[in-house]
Amino acid sequence: MEMVKILDTTLRDGEQSPGASMNIEEKIQIALQLEHLGVDVIEAGFAASSPGDFEAINQIAKQITTSSICSLARAVPGDIEVAAKAIMPAPLKRIHTFIATSPIHMEYKLKMKPEQVIQRAVEAVKLAKSFVEDVEFSCEDACRSDMSFLKEILDAVVEVGAKTLNIPDTVGYRLPHEMGAIIAELHQHIQNRAILSMHCHNDLGFATANSIAGILSGARQIECTINGLGERAGNTALEEVVMILKTRKDLFSNLQTRIRTQEIYSTSNLVANITGIRPQPNKAIVGKNAFAHESGIHQDGILKHRETYEIMRPSDVGIVGENNLVLGKHSGRAAFKDKIVSMGYRVSNEELQKAFERFKELCDSKKEIFDDDIRAILSEETTHIPQIFVLESLQVSSCSHNHHCAAISIAKEGAVYSDSALGNGSVDSILKTIDRISGFASRLKDYKVEALSRGKDALAKVVVKVEFEDGKGAIIGRGVDVDTMNATAKAYLSALNSYLSMKQFLS
Amino acid sequence: MEMVKILDTTLRDGEQSPGASMNIEEKIQIALQLEHLGVDVIEAGFAASSPGDFEAINQIAKQITTSSICSLARAVPGDIEVAAKAIMPAPLKRIHTFIATSPIHMEYKLKMKPEQVIQRAVEAVKLAKSFVEDVEFSCEDACRSDMSFLKEILDAVVEVGAKTLNIPDTVGYRLPHEMGAIIAELHQHIQNRAILSMHCHNDLGFATANSIAGILSGARQIECTINGLGERAGNTALEEVVMILKTRKDLFSNLQTRIRTQEIYSTSNLVANITGIRPQPNKAIVGKNAFAHESGIHQDGILKHRETYEIMRPSDVGIVGENNLVLGKHSGRAAFKDKIVSMGYRVSNEELQKAFERFKELCDSKKEIFDDDIRAILSEETTHIPQIFVLESLQVSSCSHNHHCAAISIAKEGAVYSDSALGNGSVDSILKTIDRISGFASRLKDYKVEALSRGKDALAKVVVKVEFEDGKGAIIGRGVDVDTMNATAKAYLSALNSYLSMKQFLS
Repeated sequence: MEMVKILDTTLRDGEQSPGASMNIEEKIQIALQLEHLGVDVIEAGFAASSPGDFEAINQIAKQITTSSICSLARAVPGDIEVAAKAIMPAPLKRIHTFIATSPIHMEYKLKMKPEQVIQRAVEAVKLAKSFVEDVEFSCEDACRSDMSFLKEILDAVVEVGAKTLNIPDTVGYRLPHEMGAIIAELHQHIQNRAILSMHCHNDLGFATANSIAGILSGARQIECTINGLGERAGNTALEEVVMILKTRKDLFSNLQTRIRTQEIYSTSNLVANITGIRPQPNKAIVGKNAFAHESGIHQDGILKHRETYEIMRPSDVGIVGENNLVLGKHSGRAAFKDKIVSMGYRVSNEELQKAFERFKELCDSKKEIFDDDIRAILSEETTHIPQIFVLESLQVSSCSHNHHCAAISIAKEGAVYSDSALGNGSVDSILKTIDRISGFASRLKDYKVEALSRGKDALAKVVVKVEFEDGKGAIIGRGVDVDTMNATAKAYLSALNSYLSMKQFLS
Repeated sequence: MEMVKILDTTLRDGEQSPGASMNIEEKIQIALQLEHLGVDVIEAGFAASSPGDFEAINQIAKQITTSSICSLARAVPGDIEVAAKAIMPAPLKRIHTFIATSPIHMEYKLKMKPEQVIQRAVEAVKLAKSFVEDVEFSCEDACRSDMSFLKEILDAVVEVGAKTLNIPDTVGYRLPHEMGAIIAELHQHIQNRAILSMHCHNDLGFATANSIAGILSGARQIECTINGLGERAGNTALEEVVMILKTRKDLFSNLQTRIRTQEIYSTSNLVANITGIRPQPNKAIVGKNAFAHESGIHQDGILKHRETYEIMRPSDVGIVGENNLVLGKHSGRAAFKDKIVSMGYRVSNEELQKAFERFKELCDSKKEIFDDDIRAILSEETTHIPQIFVLESLQVSSCSHNHHCAAISIAKEGAVYSDSALGNGSVDSILKTIDRISGFASRLKDYKVEALSRGKDALAKVVVKVEFEDGKGAIIGRGVDVDTMNATAKAYLSALNSYLSMKQFLS
């Protein structure tokens, strides 16, 4: 049985999705879940790109023990030294260094000759090897590179110790049959001297198909992200590659991954909650409708014989009795704990206690509690954003003639500050009042509300993206409440708290 | 130059996405845009499945002139007769009849022997040919069928006049290299006696790759949907297939489609607005981030030389100066009209007038008007839901202690009705008050709010899914307003109006 290694790059390439920036606490949460999912390598960031990235990788390296922790690094000494320092605390670690190899990238971006590129690559791998045993080398834009040059540079880096050779389709350009041919030729050339790795982008919708074409031609590592997050149209979706290998065992009888597929759904949910980017309902494997049969003909077939229309069971990816009514106001702590364990969450006693209190409060204001409600409570309680500004009370008056007035009280370090402001619409009045109290000016980049379960009294989850300083990227805040306006205030304050704690952390 | 035909099934398979039910007015809107996009065949529904489906197909058949109008029909006489009647008014028309051919489907679902299945298929195609010249035949679950049986049944239906042979991967099971082999063998057997067609599902993420594998092996029709909507993980996305053929002209120099690619983005937006199902940001071609370059390295590359990281131009799919500030309160009617024409909309003079009035109102309450704001106004004004209940005024008081009170006035046939109700949260109080006034009980199945453009005073768009009678499917309502609470009331009333008009239409 041969292993296919899974390198998850949700925290690096995934975080490059516009609007998906995460704070350090959130990255640690995701890393813990990726370890639990069984990912071989967690690409935790690009250490040299910012002090925040360095810090996140370093914190993750201190906490993860069974997955290897990897940092990306350009093929320049500074990047590699910083990467090595960031991953140092991890028991299993890797440096992933890269340089572009396509004519267009070498000429216009690097402004270097091919032989200089090879020399730079070799020096980078050598330097990385002086820090760690496990070094991966990537040819950026490999799939638009000259084949004989690719072989030449790969030979050179293998010679100095690169163990994994990554062949990215950086611009998402190749078709599966082309990708299969490229990897087959490289596999024939490299043989067992190193592991070939796939890193595909989805610009034309081929990321998954190209990754699998690579595996069929001898690649044995897939770089992928949860929900297919990533630059532009994203990367290969981890859940798709893993479930293909499992569902089509007839074709892949000699291959396996270490992934615990039952953890896929909760991992997908965690990433969606943290980034605010939710897979579309028709997303393969993890979309809300992926296992829903709507037409009468399909439902009839499923009732007569499950396999007429179903090739995977929802339970294979951890969807169990989804959205069923589960607990009520008479449920005790033990039943609540059992339930959240069965949903795949691991929480500390303190988190359990807080979540249970929140659950009891919720039972008072909401008749039916669904799995989604519990998931919302947990993701609130397990992402530790310091409570600097805390909502005390909120009163909004809204009417049809565009005059809205909010009156808000906010606690900070024991004192309570109150103020009010007018706005166009109730949301605008809330945000302007909070700005007045906090003294921070900000720009709202995105605002979304979802009902977390069904019914008129469903919990509302508000996700805001807020920019506090120009060019520093948007910060995501989340708030959950029975009332949409309270949830809005909570979400905005959570973005503000998150911003202040990151600032503190890095200063 | 050979043509690849595009059969769009957004209105049939796409509508089978849970929650994507559309009313007749909305289906006509989409059909008009699909015709404008250049689709060869519009599969407008499954006439025998419900009186609403029949009526929608029939109305579309009266309005569309340059695309062929198609109805699905099981291989039974009743279905085919109803399909024929529904499409009759169309200048170009097709009947698409199907029966399952896989052992598992024949044994458990149809409970028929293979020879009975062939006989039924032949009779169905003969009957269909008595109504129309253009008949398509599908082998449901073809990709899990026995190859020699497939050839036998296809020979039989070609003999009696089927012109298009569709080979669906009904359960989304096949890999691209397998699909390529299946189609190559069938193409070798069928030769030029009929056109082979692909209909792929995305359960393992291969819908697009399998469709293209089919084209490479000789298929010349693709069945697909806008945004990849459809049962479970959906169908092949029209936008992906079309842009692959265009972007990789080097591989497909002998093939072309009739699609005007510049219409892709507005078609995607229209379908997302109507179904309430928005593509995820990392969706290929039409996702919000599909053309966004986030990382510093990529931005630097793009600035140095566009093609380092870009294989398609956003303008190829109709994304032009997206989200730029465009018009202000001093803009006149002519400038407004120019703008909406440049955005790809076609509106009547009456619609233009209403939209312009709405735009002027908006200028009073909102500083900056973005493309997204204009798109919102237009989709409000161009989907003709009869105004039975109309919001007159709304007052909500919300505070932190879960007491919320709405006071609402609604006009109906000249009279104004007012009432109030308490609720858990402001949304709950609004919906309960409207129920009290309208006298209809309903269940809220989903609730979403999006900011339509940027900034704290962005327009809020609320999408609700409401069930008015058990088992009749959820109805979608949309409302747009500067204030979220007003938008909520408008959305809920639009669902109610839509429900009442559908009821009227069918009774």
